[in-house]
Parts: sequence; structure tokens; C-alpha cells
Amino acid sequence: MSTPQELIKGNEKYAATFSKGDLPMPPSKKLIVGMFKSPFRHALSASWIAHLVTCMDARLDPAASLGIDLGEAHIIRNGGGRTEDAIRSIVISQRLLGTREIAVFHHTDCGMTTFTTQDLQTKIVDEDGPEAASLVNEIDFLEFSKLEESVKHDVKYLQSHPLVLKGTPITGWIYHVENGKVTQVVQ
Amino acid sequence: MSTPQELIKGNEKYAATFSKGDLPMPPSKKLIVGMFKSPFRHALSASWIAHLVTCMDARLDPAASLGIDLGEAHIIRNGGGRTEDAIRSIVISQRLLGTREIAVFHHTDCGMTTFTTQDLQTKIVDEDGPEAASLVNEIDFLEFSKLEESVKHDVKYLQSHPLVLKGTPITGWIYHVENGKVTQVVQ
Repeated sequence: MSTPQELIKGNEKYAATFSKGDLPMPPSKKLIVGMFKSPFRHALSASWIAHLVTCMDARLDPAASLGIDLGEAHIIRNGGGRTEDAIRSIVISQRLLGTREIAVFHHTDCGMTTFTTQDLQTKIVDEDGPEAASLVNEIDFLEFSKLEESVKHDVKYLQSHPLVLKGTPITGWIYHVENGKVTQVVQ
Repeated sequence: MSTPQELIKGNEKYAATFSKGDLPMPPSKKLIVGMFKSPFRHALSASWIAHLVTCMDARLDPAASLGIDLGEAHIIRNGGGRTEDAIRSIVISQRLLGTREIAVFHHTDCGMTTFTTQDLQTKIVDEDGPEAASLVNEIDFLEFSKLEESVKHDVKYLQSHPLVLKGTPITGWIYHVENGKVTQVVQ
């Protein structure tokens, strides 16, 4: 069976018991707090739901690991959970869909700590030939070496970004792939 | 209780039964097919796991809706699931972490169909003042008006991108928020 066939099979099981077809487009807010069991719901009584930025890593399930239910939060994922690479999405989320809090999650054992942009640029030019150089040398792959510092950097980046709404609560977190726990590093 | 306190509470429940602390960094492959119940696992016997690009929308749970388990696939999420905004992450995923298939998912009732870049630029300058113009006018917010066409465009974009590995199987999909089902639009 091909990958698409298996994706369809996986989806058939999910869709068979799907019961949330009437959720509104904007992430949930005050009005529907209490309708769901998630403890996170109750945090939202004073504001629109948070917006999460986290890594693409296969070992993360951002919603499940934080008790967030369908319809509650925008989730942006990219290599490293880097906020520099999330501005377009954050602006859309805040300006058009009303989100009012941001939580930034990086995680232990992240692939972003295993290389440098220069290493990767060299590797690609070696593999693809010199014609790749002009394109790949324009890309900052946004790796980092120190986990807690990268979280702090990314929170600060958003706090000082002119297009992020002033006064947005922005917290910073580390997710531990080894035990599923989170620790907060920026209040 | 504040949002961070509620996030921590939500996580405590998840971490209490967490049992997958020994998953490897690269998304799972051949060797561990059959160890898990997900039907998607069996699709992977011939290749490394797929890489998903999908929207940040709060109504999506990409992994659960496709039967993908922890450790199986990189998941990139941004406003619209636009592939133009995912190249950095895809290059890292393919070149350093061995993923070999890509599935692009856009979805019905997407917020990206409700505005134009020019509308949003004007709105922000109106709200923030003329000093925002130089920054916001540089951003293409990558909205779209026709769903199936946007999926086809984004698959084609990756197929012709010089830094995406040649021969990568790239499929295109629509997720239906109203019933949880997926349909494949690019084979």
C-alpha cells in the first residue's frame, strides 16, 4: 500500500468519529470556555486563546502535550520553532483572527543544535553542485547552540518586533522530549 | 489561574503517562515499521517517513487526523500551509534528518481566503500609523482564493524548487474542517 493510501486509511478512522465540524474559524475565546474539559480552556476567560510557535520535530505533539483541544489555538511549527520564521503567520493570527497571547516552545535534543548554517550550505553545494550556491547561501537556517538562550532570544525578538501587537503576553518554554514535560523559562 | 499555570497543568496530565522518551531524532523509518499500531506506519516500509506542510488553523490536528504517531513525521505549520514559507525547514528535514516524502495539506474554510495582502497591509498601517508601512509592505501574506488551485500551486512550487531533492514524492490534499475527512488532489 502506498503512502497516500495509508494516509487515507488513517484519516478514515479519524473521520468516522469526528464530531467537531462546527467550530468557528477564530481560535476559541471567553464565550465557549467551560464547554470543553481541557484545563487550558479556563485560562482563556480573560483573553483570546494563545498562539503557539514550536518545532517541526516528529517527537512533539504540541496540542496534546499542553491539553489544548481542537479549535483552541493557532499552532505554527517550523525547524526549531524559530519566531523569525513565523512573522507572516503571527501577523495574520493577531490582526485577522484575534489571538492575544503567544507561547514559544523549543525542545531538548533538537536537530537545530547539530549543525551550522555554513556546514549545511557547504553540504548542499557539495551534493548539488556549484549552481546551488547562490540560492543556498542566501538562507539563514536559524540553528542554535544553547537551548534556553534560543528561547529567550525568540521571545525578545517578538517583544521588540514592530508588527507584533504591543502588550502581547509572550512566554517562553522548553519541552523535554525525554519525559514529555515542559518548563517555563520566560515568564 | 494564568495561561502559563494552565499550560503547566495541561502538561502535567500528559507527562504523567508519557512513555516515548527514547524516540530517535530523525522521523521513524523502515526499521521500526510494525512496532506501532498506526496504519500509516506500514506505508513507510519503502522509505523514510513523510514530511507534512499544513495550516496553523486551530481546527486542525494533522497527526491525529492522519493516524500519525509520535516520532513519525516532521510537521510544518504556518498560515495557509504555504510551501513558499517552509523551504528553510524542508531543506533541514531532507538534508539532515532524512525525510523523503512530502504531503501538502490546505483546508476548507481557511482564513487565508478572507483577505488580500493589500487589505491587510492597509489595515495595519491604519492601526499602527504610517511608520509601519515600510515593513508591512515588504510582506507577501500568501493568501489564496481557490483552495484546490492553492494546493496544486504549492505542490508545483516544491517540485520545481532547486533545493528540494529531485524525485521526492510530493502529494497534495484538502482537509475538510466540517467533517474531518481528507481528499487527495495531487497524486
